[in-house]
Amino acid sequence: MIQSFEHRYTSLKKIIDDKLENVIDKKLPAGIYEPLKYILSGGGKRIRPVLLILSCEAAGGNYKEAIDAAISIEMLHNFTLIHDDIMDNADKRRGKETIHKKWDRDTAILSGDALLGFAYKVMLNTTSKNIQKIARAFTEGIIEVCDGQSLDKEYEFKKAVSLDEYLTMIDKKTSQLLVSCAKIGALVGNASKNLINILSNYAKNIGLAFQIQDDLLDVTADEKKFGKKIGGDIREGKKTYLLLKALEVVKSKNDLAFIKSVVKNRGLKNDADIKRIIGLYSDYNIINSASKEVEKYTNKANKYLNGLKNKNSRESFLWFSDMLLSRNS
Amino acid sequence: MIQSFEHRYTSLKKIIDDKLENVIDKKLPAGIYEPLKYILSGGGKRIRPVLLILSCEAAGGNYKEAIDAAISIEMLHNFTLIHDDIMDNADKRRGKETIHKKWDRDTAILSGDALLGFAYKVMLNTTSKNIQKIARAFTEGIIEVCDGQSLDKEYEFKKAVSLDEYLTMIDKKTSQLLVSCAKIGALVGNASKNLINILSNYAKNIGLAFQIQDDLLDVTADEKKFGKKIGGDIREGKKTYLLLKALEVVKSKNDLAFIKSVVKNRGLKNDADIKRIIGLYSDYNIINSASKEVEKYTNKANKYLNGLKNKNSRESFLWFSDMLLSRNS
Repeated sequence: MIQSFEHRYTSLKKIIDDKLENVIDKKLPAGIYEPLKYILSGGGKRIRPVLLILSCEAAGGNYKEAIDAAISIEMLHNFTLIHDDIMDNADKRRGKETIHKKWDRDTAILSGDALLGFAYKVMLNTTSKNIQKIARAFTEGIIEVCDGQSLDKEYEFKKAVSLDEYLTMIDKKTSQLLVSCAKIGALVGNASKNLINILSNYAKNIGLAFQIQDDLLDVTADEKKFGKKIGGDIREGKKTYLLLKALEVVKSKNDLAFIKSVVKNRGLKNDADIKRIIGLYSDYNIINSASKEVEKYTNKANKYLNGLKNKNSRESFLWFSDMLLSRNS
Repeated sequence: MIQSFEHRYTSLKKIIDDKLENVIDKKLPAGIYEPLKYILSGGGKRIRPVLLILSCEAAGGNYKEAIDAAISIEMLHNFTLIHDDIMDNADKRRGKETIHKKWDRDTAILSGDALLGFAYKVMLNTTSKNIQKIARAFTEGIIEVCDGQSLDKEYEFKKAVSLDEYLTMIDKKTSQLLVSCAKIGALVGNASKNLINILSNYAKNIGLAFQIQDDLLDVTADEKKFGKKIGGDIREGKKTYLLLKALEVVKSKNDLAFIKSVVKNRGLKNDADIKRIIGLYSDYNIINSASKEVEKYTNKANKYLNGLKNKNSRESFLWFSDMLLSRNS
């Protein structure tokens, strides 16, 4: 069974990748469409379109009805990546140069804007009596992602950030777009309000688990499989779940001061220092505690799936949860 | 009669300004919603929402049905201004500091993105059986503006730009959003295809006239009424209608070399040099020729209005053309 889900995912992913590579039928102006071709054929796990399709199927819809919306949500996601990479001064994304690095800042701003326009264009190819609601859920996703990114930037400069604030931020920055995927897929499949709620709640919680897992992978991943050096978040002084939790639980003056130095110095550049922080995360059970959070939100998400009547659909989602959280990158 | 149109415009503008000031009901994150409040209450001629409303009325609709769409198109326009101002390194807009100047680059990128999301949200409040078509016309407007801005940036670095290329660029950068206004207003009013075509053609041509008028105002305006120093485009080396026309018609070696220096030096900084260029524009009838272009496109636009059955509507549009082209700023 698991193998068949794996197989389904691989074949869906291939459909999505192919469509994304050809979704933009324009070549000019090259200042927009070359970078867009570049980013849309740059790979990715495509979890958002897959979630959208699974949600459509949970409502009894055919994946083909949801394919435009699925492609459009991945385009929307890539729009956020292009602009986030400018703000984060990120040089690489999925092992390739970011657009603002390979081209320049203005190209990245503008091709991002155009990509959002194109994402709407593709979404609006959807044939559904729910098109207005679908467009609204799509739009809510954008606004929430922006709000989340704004909080993320705000927290960079804020000294004391609580775990609650962190959760609000990742809910907006990560979970709410997954909620949009679930809603849109469900609406394409003409789901009941109840089913839309179930799938939205699933998406919200799996999103939180996914994001905390992301923070965790930064310090626990196998570097080879991870594709980048571990400890990058510590190097950049990011206020991750782990760091904020450490600031809450560590009582030893020395250790606490050292953890605080990650924030104070806006990141630690020395490999030995990064290693020491990871050691402290381990000693103080922070890693364990983060794993438990991931588990908690995953279980919460999966529990909502009990409301799905279709057994195959329920199992697809369980497989999806598992795939997200057993990933290496 | 003219006075009554004037009065109508003033009262519509007030409604639009008031709505724009209150359209965003959120305050947090402040990093997004403070700049948006700032720009949306920053004034402007509001010509796009007015055009949208006139188009709705031309189709027999009530302006109230079009008000959400009208507000949303002005929000979309402001989104383009925020991002263009980053790319153009512009410090001021409508006499106030630009967002990237008053805050910072990242705030401008992100609040622009959020504004586009909010613009869709407001547009989607429209109640119409044509909502999918309306959303498509809105989306086309965004893509065209981005394409136009990309060409504009491309032409900055391109040595030889023809007048044809210039017209393509301003069509995308300015006219096509006006075409979206016309289409959306018409669709809200349930216009026939024929009426949509008439209004779109009007909008396209009045947009070209408007943009060439803009280039013209930069050298002919009364500085006091214009609100800024004349010759700004020459200072910045912008490839305006006037400059490109001069490059085509001036044959004298000396004069041509001096005009070319505007491009070569990426703008002239010296007031006397700017004055000399304006003098050449005058001597070689460039100013006259630009005025004629404005007239040509205005007449072309106005001719389409003969297809409007409603006399009052036709006169409103004629007044609108006149208002656009007799402006000082």
